[in-house]
Parts: sequence; structure tokens; C-alpha cells
Amino acid sequence: MEKNSAQFVPYIYLFSDGLVIDSQPVKVISSCSLDFYKFPFDTQNCSFSFNSYIHRRRTLQIYLSSTVADILKYSQEVMATMGEWELVGLTVKTFVPPPGNEDVWDEMRFFVFVKRRATLYVVNLLIPSYFLITVDLFSFLLPPQNVDRTLMKMTLILGFTVFLLIMSDLLPASGNTVPLINVFLCLCLALMVASLLESILITNLLRGSAHYSAVPRWVRVFVLRILGRLVRLRPKPRDQEDTVIQNPATQEDSKVSQQKGPLDEEKARKELRRLGNDFQAICLQVKHRLGEKQESEWIQVGFIIDRLLLGMYIIFLSVSFSTIITIWMQS
Amino acid sequence: MEKNSAQFVPYIYLFSDGLVIDSQPVKVISSCSLDFYKFPFDTQNCSFSFNSYIHRRRTLQIYLSSTVADILKYSQEVMATMGEWELVGLTVKTFVPPPGNEDVWDEMRFFVFVKRRATLYVVNLLIPSYFLITVDLFSFLLPPQNVDRTLMKMTLILGFTVFLLIMSDLLPASGNTVPLINVFLCLCLALMVASLLESILITNLLRGSAHYSAVPRWVRVFVLRILGRLVRLRPKPRDQEDTVIQNPATQEDSKVSQQKGPLDEEKARKELRRLGNDFQAICLQVKHRLGEKQESEWIQVGFIIDRLLLGMYIIFLSVSFSTIITIWMQS
Amino acid sequence: MEKNSAQFVPYIYLFSDGLVIDSQPVKVISSCSLDFYKFPFDTQNCSFSFNSYIHRRRTLQIYLSSTVADILKYSQEVMATMGEWELVGLTVKTFVPPPGNEDVWDEMRFFVFVKRRATLYVVNLLIPSYFLITVDLFSFLLPPQNVDRTLMKMTLILGFTVFLLIMSDLLPASGNTVPLINVFLCLCLALMVASLLESILITNLLRGSAHYSAVPRWVRVFVLRILGRLVRLRPKPRDQEDTVIQNPATQEDSKVSQQKGPLDEEKARKELRRLGNDFQAICLQVKHRLGEKQESEWIQVGFIIDRLLLGMYIIFLSVSFSTIITIWMQS
Amino acid sequence: MEKNSAQFVPYIYLFSDGLVIDSQPVKVISSCSLDFYKFPFDTQNCSFSFNSYIHRRRTLQIYLSSTVADILKYSQEVMATMGEWELVGLTVKTFVPPPGNEDVWDEMRFFVFVKRRATLYVVNLLIPSYFLITVDLFSFLLPPQNVDRTLMKMTLILGFTVFLLIMSDLLPASGNTVPLINVFLCLCLALMVASLLESILITNLLRGSAHYSAVPRWVRVFVLRILGRLVRLRPKPRDQEDTVIQNPATQEDSKVSQQKGPLDEEKARKELRRLGNDFQAICLQVKHRLGEKQESEWIQVGFIIDRLLLGMYIIFLSVSFSTIITIWMQS
Amino acid sequence: MEKNSAQFVPYIYLFSDGLVIDSQPVKVISSCSLDFYKFPFDTQNCSFSFNSYIHRRRTLQIYLSSTVADILKYSQEVMATMGEWELVGLTVKTFVPPPGNEDVWDEMRFFVFVKRRATLYVVNLLIPSYFLITVDLFSFLLPPQNVDRTLMKMTLILGFTVFLLIMSDLLPASGNTVPLINVFLCLCLALMVASLLESILITNLLRGSAHYSAVPRWVRVFVLRILGRLVRLRPKPRDQEDTVIQNPATQEDSKVSQQKGPLDEEKARKELRRLGNDFQAICLQVKHRLGEKQESEWIQVGFIIDRLLLGMYIIFLSVSFSTIITIWMQS
Repeated sequence: MEKNSAQFVPYIYLFSDGLVIDSQPVKVISSCSLDFYKFPFDTQNCSFSFNSYIHRRRTLQIYLSSTVADILKYSQEVMATMGEWELVGLTVKTFVPPPGNEDVWDEMRFFVFVKRRATLYVVNLLIPSYFLITVDLFSFLLPPQNVDRTLMKMTLILGFTVFLLIMSDLLPASGNTVPLINVFLCLCLALMVASLLESILITNLLRGSAHYSAVPRWVRVFVLRILGRLVRLRPKPRDQEDTVIQNPATQEDSKVSQQKGPLDEEKARKELRRLGNDFQAICLQVKHRLGEKQESEWIQVGFIIDRLLLGMYIIFLSVSFSTIITIWMQS
Repeated sequence: MEKNSAQFVPYIYLFSDGLVIDSQPVKVISSCSLDFYKFPFDTQNCSFSFNSYIHRRRTLQIYLSSTVADILKYSQEVMATMGEWELVGLTVKTFVPPPGNEDVWDEMRFFVFVKRRATLYVVNLLIPSYFLITVDLFSFLLPPQNVDRTLMKMTLILGFTVFLLIMSDLLPASGNTVPLINVFLCLCLALMVASLLESILITNLLRGSAHYSAVPRWVRVFVLRILGRLVRLRPKPRDQEDTVIQNPATQEDSKVSQQKGPLDEEKARKELRRLGNDFQAICLQVKHRLGEKQESEWIQVGFIIDRLLLGMYIIFLSVSFSTIITIWMQS
Repeated sequence: MEKNSAQFVPYIYLFSDGLVIDSQPVKVISSCSLDFYKFPFDTQNCSFSFNSYIHRRRTLQIYLSSTVADILKYSQEVMATMGEWELVGLTVKTFVPPPGNEDVWDEMRFFVFVKRRATLYVVNLLIPSYFLITVDLFSFLLPPQNVDRTLMKMTLILGFTVFLLIMSDLLPASGNTVPLINVFLCLCLALMVASLLESILITNLLRGSAHYSAVPRWVRVFVLRILGRLVRLRPKPRDQEDTVIQNPATQEDSKVSQQKGPLDEEKARKELRRLGNDFQAICLQVKHRLGEKQESEWIQVGFIIDRLLLGMYIIFLSVSFSTIITIWMQS
Repeated sequence: MEKNSAQFVPYIYLFSDGLVIDSQPVKVISSCSLDFYKFPFDTQNCSFSFNSYIHRRRTLQIYLSSTVADILKYSQEVMATMGEWELVGLTVKTFVPPPGNEDVWDEMRFFVFVKRRATLYVVNLLIPSYFLITVDLFSFLLPPQNVDRTLMKMTLILGFTVFLLIMSDLLPASGNTVPLINVFLCLCLALMVASLLESILITNLLRGSAHYSAVPRWVRVFVLRILGRLVRLRPKPRDQEDTVIQNPATQEDSKVSQQKGPLDEEKARKELRRLGNDFQAICLQVKHRLGEKQESEWIQVGFIIDRLLLGMYIIFLSVSFSTIITIWMQS
Repeated sequence: MEKNSAQFVPYIYLFSDGLVIDSQPVKVISSCSLDFYKFPFDTQNCSFSFNSYIHRRRTLQIYLSSTVADILKYSQEVMATMGEWELVGLTVKTFVPPPGNEDVWDEMRFFVFVKRRATLYVVNLLIPSYFLITVDLFSFLLPPQNVDRTLMKMTLILGFTVFLLIMSDLLPASGNTVPLINVFLCLCLALMVASLLESILITNLLRGSAHYSAVPRWVRVFVLRILGRLVRLRPKPRDQEDTVIQNPATQEDSKVSQQKGPLDEEKARKELRRLGNDFQAICLQVKHRLGEKQESEWIQVGFIIDRLLLGMYIIFLSVSFSTIITIWMQS
């Protein structure tokens, strides 16, 4: 507690009936243990104790001059510069000594309840964070085979760290309990990082799986059958469509070669067929090169994991957010 | 209110007619409840009350030595370091007691009206924010089928959070009313996020719709017919143009096959026709692979929603901005 | 003005001739109205007035013990911690009362001229800003049809806002005149945003113009003819080159079909010609799909506007920068 | 040590047995040499020495009124505003003079052990840093031949510098020992930069190696044989697969040309074969142009170095992190 | 110099031999002119002058009670909170008056040498800056024809400005000499911007040179011959390789047409040859469209300039860095 820094008042009222009124304004800066757990929806309880330094109860007794409700009401009216704090309650506890025992100090303890005005924090911190996590959630809609999700998610995480920076400036590291909002932001970051890692994994499966060995049996059984049924996603492989286009040609080709057997036409036909093969090779090459390799089972694995993680993401997000919001709302 | 921190003056003028002039400079740091609602176009009203601590009206009366207008004029002249504040008004209210009742304290209350100089905030905060929101609006011009809008919009949002960071440093969280500028910036962010989400959705429709099932009937009726007419956008499907190129070949092909009927030429022709089919397959493959799939109805849905949201974006922007600016202008 | 915070000196020199020397060190913190208009090349003028609080001229007169030049010289020598300020001048103005009128206060007013040392601001703020605006200017060199300018310009703007952040921390919002450096930075940002919007527009014209209707007549006349002549840019349409390659084939084809009339060779030739048509269709498709559509008139419009805006950019940049630098240099 | 800033208490208890109790509250701000080496898991040891300024031991002796354990317990109870510090210990060392020698000052020295509450730093600093380094580790999964790793890693490094910025604000540059957390963050940054440089190198090998001269002999022996065996990675070259497609045609072609020798069919066949060669040339061109050049040995070198560096990255990361965490855990 | 803020000690030792010891602790906050030129490797020299305010040498003489070395040693031991400063030296200069002249003030001047502990600045500022400039240097390895260097370099510059931001917070703008570290960082930024501009130029030459007119003669002579020999880089034009593939076909074609002259085979051959020409046209088109235009001389100019600037970059970097480091090391 600091020294009294208010102006000293050198006047005392002396009434004829012996009543003495000495109104000394007191301006104190006291310290109060803050609990940031529910920040920014926290209510702090600070106590001020008034007692005599030397006079015991037998010589000095302390009374309130008006009721607590009046003090609270008057305080709320005149208090202009509480900043982000709102005075919500005031209680007084007087130490009642056991009867007959006058050898104690009289003490009056004020409990001041102040509530933080959270609107600005909600507008400046929580809503933008919520926006960013929403963007991250929606980024699952980006088709992974065409668009590079990773860079966008990386930028998102970069933007989120700016909020962590604001946050870190706002809150002093003061309690042994971590504020819920830090858990909230850290959780958001964890989710974003997890979804980024998942995007990297999917990219790896979709674009790099050409080099992979075949899908192991247990993966095929577990992921493709069991999880795939869970997700109810079995993307129609695009190669079927392609083979539909190619097959007629080759089948017709084989049928043609069986139906007819002219001799000297055969050589020209052979050449032409070779030519046709070359064309199909081009088809394959072009198809191959242009980044849409065979939609192998690895890619199906990738899609299923993508959807599965999206589901887990949504579930985890809902559960954790509702928990945090419930805790905030209870205050 | 702080203690008087001005230098004490030990001199008093004693005039022969009994007039006593004791000019004590008073330097006080007072607190004033600020209302940030219209920040940075706000005008604050701070009051200073001067009254005696003990002497009632019957023994001490307080008067102004000059008119209020003169005080205001003189204050505006000598005031050098108001910083961003401009003194715009000064009024005095004297407590007039009911006649005959002298048992009250005489009180003089000054109301000081200061106006914030907003130019620097406009230049440093509002104009750049307006620039960024304009960029976001113009980014709808980027053709979604060719350019990746999402990354650019993500970078835009990242840049915007830097302004939120500046903002958050500027304004203390002090009132129970959220400043309009925070609503403004938060609204801008919300619009940017919404337009980013819309871009993700469009990207999903344009590039990932190949895997989709057919457009549901209600979507077709609602979006394509009703909304499409609203937007008056029915992008000419590019595949028509493509089929124009292919059709002659195939039609000529069929006509040729009907016109002529030579026997042993037919086999060579058959082969050649198969070859031609292969070419068309290549065409299709190349066309297919190079990212411009059939402009299915999903893509039309995407375009229509894109335009629709652009319209809503513009309308929402105009309405909200004009509202905010109107409120600011009224002050 | 703050209280004198220097140590009190309890000694007075009493000389035998009646001279009394009482050297009291005075340490004052005074406020000075700063004018940030030419920041960081500003020179501030602060005044200190010394007068007696009660004694009029008839009883107390104030003199300087040495010349102003000596005081200035001595001040410059002993002054160690002016920080970024450099003492450049000191003038004294003594109030000269009308003769015979001794009933005024004697007053001595010092005018202290301090000049900001701008080197660090130039190195840390102006040069990096100049670098970034140069990068933005050079980014017009990026061929718009191949490289995505928008993302790079967006990142540039993001980097520029970091400098705005530094700037905003440096300068308090204190005057009613906006500092030139803010105008400078805001102008840079405006130019960057304008060039970004122009890039979006060009991208739209270059890549999205396939969906557009024909160029309106007035655009064709105004932009292509008049402005195009201004810019002296008429990029050789690349399709001419392409048609050079294709035309011989088709022309030869038509000539061939007119020159010769063999009957049974004709059918094979017909087939082959159909095959050739297919090839040309492939050519067209490939050309079409690979992002280089017909360089329609819209694209020419885009190029002309690009060059035109580059010109305006350079002109605007030169004019505004030279203006600002001229103003700075005059101080 | 600052002046005592506590309120002066003008009361003294005088007991009838001659005992005098003078309880003066003392509020001191003392300086304490902090050791940031293990930040944020550091425990600081501050000492307060109480001794008389003039009275020697023979005239003044200092005693504690209660046991140290009680003082510690009471201190922990009433201490409300230690901020991020937790009082964990208190020891007292009394200076015991040699017997008979009373000509010394009695001194009592308190050692206060305070421990930093690290949770908030872990949540706000260490966990996000760990997230980012994890993302960097996983980014090795991105297939280097398809995805541009460099930009994503650059963004990652950009995001990491934001944490360096937070860190730099938190910790004053105060010791001659660098805090471990700075080493930790600097190490993370070094690893990220190293992995970025490696990505650039790999990109150079994968995409730019077409211009290179042949792989030198020592590289071939050292990297491809020895290191390649270490990594156990020999990516099946994709060109083998391609040649499988092409070879049958050419081999069949050569076989066909050996088997048969008809004369006037040969010319047509020759033409067709030339046509076929053209097709293969197209294949080669398309293959060539579409960015997947021959998977030359340089590319294999790239892949091997990529895996090798990933291994070194993991090893280095594990070793250094476990070392740092071990040091932190020991405190 | 501030007022003495240490506790007043009301005791004086009076010894029987007339010796009087009055130990007054003095706590002063003095200002010291700092020279930031070699920051963070700077050593500051602050002087404290002790002299009497009134008593001249004849009445008051000042002596040190112990040697300077002892004072330095004792100071280094007890000094706990110098923060980033390390006490490295202490010298005393006593004003020696000319003999016989006692009419001067006795003065003792302490010179305190403090050295900044630079480790943390090295770890937090210099090493990361060095990392970033290294990344920029290595980014020259990215093959300009395949990878978009500009965006990556832009992100790098963005990351570097974050360090400028940290730097700008650290160092007050206080001297008329710019600190070397600012020059260092500004130089790094300049190099990065230069390399970015060079990348834009190279991109322009590589991708946009198709629209250009022919290389002027002086450029061809100067750049291709002289500079190209300097760089010893003459990238084998890839088109030679391509023409190797195409030429045989066309040459064989022409040879074939000269060798043989059968009449009715000729028409079919003609058709086929036309077909073959179409194929070659496709080849050309595909080659043309897929971004690898003819490696014209402009592209060679680009490559040579790229290498040349890389060389200049390295040379400039080495020279300037070694200069700066030399200056730092000398302190």
C-alpha cells in the first residue's frame, strides 16, 4: 500500500455537543491480487481493511456513517475513471470480537467487486480470432488436388500470431493459473497447425504417391473399408471415366483384329495400329504428366483421412469452444 | 484529483482599501470520464468544480474575475501543449442557492469542451483501412477460374490485422460503449473474411465440382433460374465453343460414312476413323486435364453466387459505411 | 511548467562592496508547442520567459550576465543529453517598457531553437519506404500475362504497413497540421494500392476477357487508337504468328484440293485431311487451353492501360516526391 | 536501494517492564541481480541485509522475533501481488562474530528465493515455437518436384520472427550469459533457415539440373552409392516407366522392319514410321516441356541429400531439444 | 543531474583526535552522452565531477580514501544491477592547481567506462539478420525460368522489416552519427531490394522477351561477348537440343523427296508429309505455349546479368560486411 497522496485538510468541525468531525480524504493505491482465469470476463474482488494502528477496541471503535448500499450507489455515481472496470458490488465485514474481550483491534474490511468490461476485448480479440479459425475451417473446402492449401494456411497462422502478439502485450504473466483465453488462443493455434500438417500429409499423398509402394493390407482394410464407410466418401475414381474413353478404342481394336483377316491390308493396319498405340501413349503421357496421376488407392486414403480429420476438427472445435464459452458464461 | 503540484507563491497583495489579492497558481491533474464512442471525431466534456472545503456561503462566496468568453479566448491563446486536443468551449455553472438559505457551500463548476484533432487518425488509420477494403472489393474482379484469389485475400487480411494492432494500442478499453471505429474495423474484417470464405466456396465449385453429384433440382431452379436472372449473368459456356470445333469433324465423319460405301477402302477408313477418334480422345484428355473441365451447372452456380455476393458486399458496405460516417459527421 | 527540481543551494556570496551573488540552479521541465509539419526535418522554437512574480520594474530589473552568443556557445559545449535535438540558436528578447512607465514587470524571454537530427529517421524510415515504392514501380516490369503480380504487390503493401506501424509509434497526434511524412507515406500507400488495383484490372482483362462481349466502339476508338498512339505500344498480336504456321497448311490444303482431282486417292486424302483438321483442332485446343487465348482487343486494351498507368504513376510519383522534398529542403 | 516509502508510524509501545516495541513498517525497493540463464524456468535468489548504520554489536544486537519457517509461511499467505513470482524459500544467515570481539556490526541477511511461474511463457512462447518448428519438420513431406516449398518455408520463418519480436520485448539484455530460451529460438531459426536453404538447393537440382554438366565421378560414387545406401532411398526413376511405354513401339518397329521386306509397301511404311517418329518426338517434347525432365542423376542426388538432411535435421533437433529441456528440468 | 535521492544519515563519527567521519550515501541519476556509433559493441565513458559548491581550495580539499584500483574492484563486486552494462574501467583525474594559487575549486572527476554486453544483441539481431541475408543470397540458386523468385524475395524483405522494427524500438535517435548497425541493416535491405529488382528484370527478360524487338547490337557485343566471357556462362541453348530432334525428320524428309520420284505414291506421301508438318506445328505450338519460348538472345542476356549481379552481390556483401566487422572488432 502506498502512502496517502491526498491533500491534507487542516480543518476539524467542533460541535457544541462535543461531536468532532474530521473529514480527511484518503487516496491510496493498494494492491489487489487479480485472478485472470476468466479474462476478459473476470470479476475481481479487492479488499480494503481499515483498522487502528495502535488503539484497541476498548479505546477506538469504527463505524460506517451510512449504509453499504448507499455507499455503493454513491460510488457508482461519482466514479468517473474506472477505465475498463465497472463497480458491481461492495460489502463490508466488521470484525465482531467475542463479548467481554475488548483487547483486540477493531477492523472494518471492505470488499470491492469490480467487473471488467469485456466488449472491447470481444470485438478486438475474440471475434477476429473466431474469424481466423473459421477461415481455417472453411479452407478444408479447397480441393486439395488443385489448390495449394499449405501456403494459405501458413499465412493464416502468420496472421494469428499477430493476435498472440496483441494478447501477450495485454496480459501480464501473473497467476499460477493460465487464463482461459490463452488456452483458447493456443488451442486455436494448435488446431491450425494440425490442419496445416494434415494438408501437408494430403499433399504428399495426392502428389507424391506415385513413388510409393503399394498400399499395405492393413491400411487398405482399415482406412479404405472401415473409415471410408464412416466418412461415406468414395470419390468416383476419375480414371474410370478415362478408361471409358480409351477402352472402346482398344476393345474395338481387338474386336476388329479378330473379325477380319485380310493379308496385305494387315501390314498397313499394323502400322496404323502402332500409330494408334503411339497416340494412346501420348494420351497416357499427357494425362500422366499433367499432374493427375492414377488415382491410386493412396489418393483415396488421402481423401478419407482429409474428411475424417475435418470431422474430428469440427467435433474438437465444438466441444472445446462450448466448454470455454460455458466457463465464461458462468461468471 | 492529484495534489496541487504548482510552485507555492509566498506573496500576497495588500491594498490600502482592504483589498487582498492572493494569486495562487494551481496545477491539478484531474480525471475526466471520456466517451470514446465517436473516436477519433469525439468531443469530450470535462468538469472542474471549485468550492470551499469548510466555509459555507455565508462566509465565503466565489466569483469569476472576468467573463467566461475572455477566459476561453485567453486560454486558447496561451495553451500550447494540448497535444491532439483542441479547446472548443468553456462554460461556467454557478450553484444558485434558494434565497435566504445561506447554509450551503458556494460552488463554481467549469465545463471544458475539448475536441480531438482527427486528421492524423484519418490519415494513418481510416484511409489505409479504406484502401485495404477497396482492394478486397476489387479482388472480385480477379477471374476465379484462373487466379487463386484465396492467398491474396489471406495476405490482405494479414495486412489488416496490423491495423487492428495499431488500433488496439491506441485505444484503452475504457467505456461500456464500443467505439464506432472498432465496429468499423471489425466490420471490415468481417467483410474480408466473408469474401475470403466466398472465394473458397467458389474455388471449390469451380475446381472441385467434377467429383460432385448432379446439381439438385431446387438448386437448379432457385439459383440458376431465379438468382441467375437477378444477376443477369449467364456466362456463355465455353464448351459450346469447343464442340463447335469438334462437331464439324464428327458430323462430316458421319456424313462421309453415309455418302460413300466403297468396300475395301472402308477398312482403311475405319482404321483412320479410329485414329481420328483417338485424336478426339486426346483433345478431350488435354481439355480435361488442363483444368477447364466441363463448365457444368455447378460452375454456373458458382458464378452466380459470386456475382450475388459481390452485390451484397457492395450494398452492405455502402449502407454500413454511410451509417458510420453519418454518425461521425453529426458530431 | 513543473516545479524547480534542482538541489537547493543554501549559500550566498556577500561581497564587501555590497554585491550579492546568489546562484540558484534551476531545473525546469517546460512545455513547448511543437510543430511536426516538416518532421523529421523540423526546427522547433521554444520560449522561456523569466520575470518576477511580484516585483515591478521599479524595484527589480533583470539583466543577462553575459552575451547571448556566449551563452549559446557555452550551452552547446556542456549540453550532453539533448538526444535527437541539436541546439542551433538562442535569442533573447527583453521587454522594453515605455519610458517613465515603471509600473510594469521586467521580463526576459529566451527563444531556444532546436533542430532535429534527421539522419536516423532517414536511414530507418525514408530510405526503406523509398525502397519499397521502388520495388512497386519496378513490379510493372513483371509480364502480366505470365506472372501473378497481385500477390507480390499485396505482400509489398503488407510490408509497407509495418513502416506505417513504426511511424505511428513515433509521432504523437499533436498538431492540427498533418506532418508531411504522413502525407508522404499515405501517398505511397495510395500509389501502391492504385497499382495493385490496376494489376487486378489487367489480370481481369488478360485472363478473364474470354467471357466478355466485344469491345465497345468508343473503347476501341478511344483506348486503342488515341491512347495506344500515345503509349506507342501496339504489341504484335501473337496469333498472327500462329496463323502463319497454320495458314500454309490450310491454304496448301485448299490449293491441293483444287489442283488435283484423282478419284480413289481422294477418299484416303479426305480421311487424311480430316485427320489433319483434327490435328489443327488439337493445336487450337492446346493453344486455347494453355492460357494464351486469342489476344483479343480486350487484351490490347489491358496492355495500353497498363502502360498508361505506369506513365501516370511515374509522373505522379516524380511530381509529388519533388514537391515534398522541396518543402523539406527549404527548412 | 530506494528510500523507505512506507507511512511513518508515530507510536511506540512502552511496557511497564521496560520493554519498548516500535513497529516501523518498511517498504523498500531493492535491486537484485537476476540470472536469466534458465528463463522462464528460473529461480532467483535475492538477499536483504539488515544492520545498524552506526551501532556496533556491543550496543545493538539484532534478533528475529519468530522462526524463519513462520515468517515464510506468513509471507506466502499475505503476499498478494508477486505477479509472476512465487515465493519458494526464505533463509536467514546471521553474522556470528568471533567470541569476545564485540567491535563489529551485527548483521542479519535474508535470502529470498522466488520462482518464476512459467506456465504462461510455456503457453504463449514455447508451445507456439514448437508448433512452428514442427510445421517446418513436416514440410519435408511436401513432394519437392510438385510443390514450391520455399515460399511456404519463407512464410514460416516470417511467422517465427514475430515470436522473436515478442521474446525481444520480454527479456532485457541483462546478463553476460545468454538465456537458454534465446539459444533455443535462435537454434530453431537456424534450423528453419538451413531447411529453407536445403529446399532451394533441392529445387535447383530438380528443376534447373537440365542445364548442368554431367554428375562428377566423386559425387556419383559418394552421394549416389554411399549416401544413397545410407538413406536406403533409390526412387524408381519415372523414365523407366516411360521407356516401357515407348520401347515396345520402337522395338516392334525395328523387329517389323527386320521381319518383312515388301518393296512398295515399304515407302508408305517409311512415311508412317516417320510419322510415328514425329509422334514420339511430340511425346518427348510434351514430357520434356511439362517440367518433368529426365530424372537424371542430379535429381537422384537431390533426393538423397533431401532425405539425408531430413535425417540430420531430426537428429540435431532431438539432441539439442533434449539437452535444453534437460537443463530446464534440472532447475 | 537529479537530486540526491538516498536516505539521509543523521550520524557523524567524532573521534578524540579531532577526526570527523561523516559518511553520507549519495544516489545520483546523472546524464551521460552516449555514442551509439559502434552499437551493440560500444563502450561508453561517463564522467562524474565532485567539487564544492562554495569552498575554494584553500578551505576545502578533496581526497580519495582508497586507490582507484580498489574502488574499481570493490565496485565490480558489489554492483548487481548494471543490466546490459559491464564496468570495465574507472579513472580519476584530480584538478591540480598551479602552485600558490589557492583561489580555485578543488575538483575530482571520475571517468567510468562501461561496456555493453553484446551477446544478446548478437543472438537476437545480428544472427537472424545474417540468416535472412544468407537466404537472399542462396535464392539466386532458384532457377529463374521455373520458379517465381519475386514473391519469395518479397516475403523475405517483409520478414526483414520486422527486424528493422525491433531495431527501431531498441535505439533512440540520439546522435548525429548513425550507428553502424543501422547502416548494416539498411545495407542489407538495400541488397535485398536490389536482388529483388534484379529478379523482376530477369523474369521480364525470361518470360516477356517474346514481345521484344531484336537485341540491339551494342547489347549483343557488350553483354553477350564481353560480360558473357567474364561470367564464363553460355548456357547451352535448349533449342539446339530440340532442333536435333526435329531436324532429322525434316532433313530426312527433304532427302527422301530428292532420292525418290515415284509418281502416284507421291500424292499419299505429300498428304502424309503435310500431316507430318502439322505434327511439327503441334510440337512447335506445344513447345511455344508451355512457357519455354525460343531461348532468344534476350534470355541469354538475362542469364548473364543474373550471374553478373550475383557476383557483384557477393563482392559487395563481402567488402561491406568485412568493413563493418573490422570496425566493430577494433573496439
